[in-house]
Amino acid sequence: MERSAEFHRWKEQCLSKADLSRKGSVDEDVVGLVQLLNAREQFFTTSSCAGRVLLLDGVIDGFQVQKQNCCWLLVTHKPCVKEDVMVALKKANGDAVLKFEPFVLHVQCRQLEDAQILHSVAVDSGFRNSGITVGKRGKTMLAVRSTHGLEVPLSHKGKLMVTEEYIDFLLKIANQKMEENKKRIERFYNCLQHALERETVTKTKEENKSSTRTYKKKRNPEKAHGKYIAKENDEKLENDDGDPEFSLTIFPEDY
Amino acid sequence: MERSAEFHRWKEQCLSKADLSRKGSVDEDVVGLVQLLNAREQFFTTSSCAGRVLLLDGVIDGFQVQKQNCCWLLVTHKPCVKEDVMVALKKANGDAVLKFEPFVLHVQCRQLEDAQILHSVAVDSGFRNSGITVGKRGKTMLAVRSTHGLEVPLSHKGKLMVTEEYIDFLLKIANQKMEENKKRIERFYNCLQHALERETVTKTKEENKSSTRTYKKKRNPEKAHGKYIAKENDEKLENDDGDPEFSLTIFPEDY
Repeated sequence: MERSAEFHRWKEQCLSKADLSRKGSVDEDVVGLVQLLNAREQFFTTSSCAGRVLLLDGVIDGFQVQKQNCCWLLVTHKPCVKEDVMVALKKANGDAVLKFEPFVLHVQCRQLEDAQILHSVAVDSGFRNSGITVGKRGKTMLAVRSTHGLEVPLSHKGKLMVTEEYIDFLLKIANQKMEENKKRIERFYNCLQHALERETVTKTKEENKSSTRTYKKKRNPEKAHGKYIAKENDEKLENDDGDPEFSLTIFPEDY
Repeated sequence: MERSAEFHRWKEQCLSKADLSRKGSVDEDVVGLVQLLNAREQFFTTSSCAGRVLLLDGVIDGFQVQKQNCCWLLVTHKPCVKEDVMVALKKANGDAVLKFEPFVLHVQCRQLEDAQILHSVAVDSGFRNSGITVGKRGKTMLAVRSTHGLEVPLSHKGKLMVTEEYIDFLLKIANQKMEENKKRIERFYNCLQHALERETVTKTKEENKSSTRTYKKKRNPEKAHGKYIAKENDEKLENDDGDPEFSLTIFPEDY
């Protein structure tokens, strides 16, 4: 119960803080999803990006352009137009790179079981690189991640290395990815809604079952006592391993 | 104990199976790491790739080239030479894409705590997209993943969309990434070795402490009994929350 209270405090703190992202607000395409999660007591979102096309100018440090030390020439969460990229590229004097970064979401979860449900929904919706993080004091996070997007070097020391025709071709691919990414977010939203509904139904059924049992016990407490204790223990063990019907629907076999 | 025996059975089964990857063996650069993990009773690796440059030819399905339905024109775990790519590109008749895929590793872990240590080591070594998966029956996996590599469309319907000079430029970047990726694997190996040694030392100290305690208890069992039981319980509670010194070293604060 202490753990649950701590989670509730974290949630309140986090949701009352100002949005420190460059944009300062949640992206339009994920507002519904973020609200759905934050309305549930067992979850709260700590960061999100719906997906974007990004044009960065910087010095490659041997592995990748450092986002901190480089200049953002262009960023858009909508389909990207060639003219905008050509204008932005004129400002590049280092190594410009065009990226498509798909949807990403971080959700803090009350307990591991909550993260498992969310993880399963994410993987089923196509976000196969999602994963759970458990901190030293049990802080449990789910990161929803897609298999990677697109990362294309375009210029070197300010010199454009590709043709305008290629940029046109590249943006068509980036925009297709953006479209597919949007579909996956919708799929995630729908799958999540179903999973949460199913969870509520399961919990309500269990509560009903246990209240019926309590009623029966009261009718003949002496006779029934030993028997019901045994039954309840069996049920507890079963639930520790997960309700079979629920688990089969929610968790894919390959995990 | 039943859980531990089940893990042991899984491990034996998995490591005795034939390697079903295209290559049929573990990549040279990760052999040491894979051996280090498999020598520990709490881990076994289920798949790995040291990192590679890949040239695929296929039809983009709106989001990404499907690896299953497309042709692998070239794959190398070593620095990539322009001539090889130019020869391979001649065989492309669809949409060819050059990718750099960084190191990836899947490790099954005996319990969540083991996955947490490994996860922390992975993130500290630069594999920030790593994450834990917990299946419905408690099967616990860690996926070690890097932030993404490189994904560059090169041709459309067999027609090359970039110049040879661009391919040269691109391969220099891909090879730099390969080099940096190798450094990160080495860092991961070293960090892991330290973490595992530290864990062994901590465990040995605890075992020594408890054996000293048993010895003291035997010297004056009546007088000491109540006191030592209380101390042992305190220690157990502390350990449930993780040894503070150990945790501070292993788990970064932002988790």
